[in-house]
Amino acid sequence: MHPRLTLAISIMEALALFSYAISGLIEARKRRLDAVGAFMVALATAFGGGTVRDVLLSRRPFYWVEHQDYVLVIFAMAIFAPMLLKMTSRLFDERLLLIADAIGLGLFSISGTSIALDAQMPAFTAVMMGVVTGVFGGVMRDVLCNEIPLILRDSRPYAVCAFAGCWLYLLLDRMEIDTIYAVLLSTAFILIARLVTFKFDIRLPH
Amino acid sequence: MHPRLTLAISIMEALALFSYAISGLIEARKRRLDAVGAFMVALATAFGGGTVRDVLLSRRPFYWVEHQDYVLVIFAMAIFAPMLLKMTSRLFDERLLLIADAIGLGLFSISGTSIALDAQMPAFTAVMMGVVTGVFGGVMRDVLCNEIPLILRDSRPYAVCAFAGCWLYLLLDRMEIDTIYAVLLSTAFILIARLVTFKFDIRLPH
Amino acid sequence: MHPRLTLAISIMEALALFSYAISGLIEARKRRLDAVGAFMVALATAFGGGTVRDVLLSRRPFYWVEHQDYVLVIFAMAIFAPMLLKMTSRLFDERLLLIADAIGLGLFSISGTSIALDAQMPAFTAVMMGVVTGVFGGVMRDVLCNEIPLILRDSRPYAVCAFAGCWLYLLLDRMEIDTIYAVLLSTAFILIARLVTFKFDIRLPH
Repeated sequence: MHPRLTLAISIMEALALFSYAISGLIEARKRRLDAVGAFMVALATAFGGGTVRDVLLSRRPFYWVEHQDYVLVIFAMAIFAPMLLKMTSRLFDERLLLIADAIGLGLFSISGTSIALDAQMPAFTAVMMGVVTGVFGGVMRDVLCNEIPLILRDSRPYAVCAFAGCWLYLLLDRMEIDTIYAVLLSTAFILIARLVTFKFDIRLPH
Repeated sequence: MHPRLTLAISIMEALALFSYAISGLIEARKRRLDAVGAFMVALATAFGGGTVRDVLLSRRPFYWVEHQDYVLVIFAMAIFAPMLLKMTSRLFDERLLLIADAIGLGLFSISGTSIALDAQMPAFTAVMMGVVTGVFGGVMRDVLCNEIPLILRDSRPYAVCAFAGCWLYLLLDRMEIDTIYAVLLSTAFILIARLVTFKFDIRLPH
Repeated sequence: MHPRLTLAISIMEALALFSYAISGLIEARKRRLDAVGAFMVALATAFGGGTVRDVLLSRRPFYWVEHQDYVLVIFAMAIFAPMLLKMTSRLFDERLLLIADAIGLGLFSISGTSIALDAQMPAFTAVMMGVVTGVFGGVMRDVLCNEIPLILRDSRPYAVCAFAGCWLYLLLDRMEIDTIYAVLLSTAFILIARLVTFKFDIRLPH
């Protein structure tokens, strides 16, 4: 793979992880959790999806064991959460967080599907593993904060975008397109699908 | 095993799975979840118990990986949930759903115990694995819907019926009765115990 | 290891397990769960942390599979919960339960870290596994009872004490101090830290 491309994906991955962590911190703040709560909810949001996938696939080591530095950064983020969130809301508007989250949804879902395919899972299961990787962090965040998970009720096509994108990835993979292009294309698809359906306020049947 | 018996058990299994899924859809409807929520809650209700058991026993592949067709049917059920639930409540009365659910409780609990015994678990653990297989789908359904799990509070002997039936299965197994008869007898025991205690409104101590 | 020391640790372990179970029973009573609910919540509180750790580390058999006798005792405790809780609140004052719980926090966290180190986990992960072992039982208890987990919101340094004690254990381990002394010292540290911060009502930033 071209080294610049690898770098680009690593940067997007970090961006996505931290935007997931920030969504955890925001939720923790809303529910008036303390610093420990903020850290745990941020961790669960950032790494929950991948961890559930790895438990289901009997896959080790976990991402957060191999990337302890990310855990440490989230640790620092949780300690300085009040400052960080004030800064975040001043520097970035909601749109930027939405975009970062959509990148995360795309990257995590596609990487989940790709990992499940490597583990010889059948097609539909691989797609479901991708969706789980993308959305389960948020489900855990909401269960810990004692709410019905947002993605189960807000009727916006969040998991559905991931679902469609994972099928696209599968299709590109079957067509034997170079993995890196398949990843980029289907991640971009999820990102755009999420932003477009959000923008035009498209809703799922209730 | 007699092929007609195998067929009968497969039919009962499918019946049980779908009645679990329907109880998930009903709960999802009550909490006003969208189609994604309905699908996820139905999946968790139908496959949650067996999945937790398999994770605890380090057992793969999961049932829903080997039976993707069932997942697809639940997928369709979730999409057409509003229609389906209207039809269900017109065609079947509550009693039928209760019976289907009790068959599920019986079959899932006994199969869970049998699988745990095959994995060399000691007696009490095998029984607990059976109960977990039978009731954890419902626990997950209620946690996702932000309720205290029904089986922890409704004081009806639901898990208790499964518990007793699993001990009966263990006993029959020790007596070296043919597996198929042991399964049928103890499943029938759970089914009847559940229906009788329900009918006479027998309650656990609070 | 000196046999009297082994005995002392076994006794502390049993004490800790049952104080965790009792905290589960108290919570179950508060939320008006039935006997099944009391049993399940007590089990989850006592064994939840270790089970999550073992699932994450792919480690078997579970503690509660090897110590079925403890499960049976908790089973009896749940059945006689109303009596037991009356007796407990008469015989022991809250302080004793607090101490027993703090012993549990110390022992479980340190044993979790030690097990994670044996499984070749890196330092920070081993510490996190220790904290998970110590606090996740309580998290499960609260999620089952439909509350935001106490440790995420009460702003008392509970997980933080475990966190600090696990680092102390790691340090002592690196200094090649005899394991048993390292365990005792760092458990004592957590116990004292918890009691002192509780006594002086020291709070985390919110």
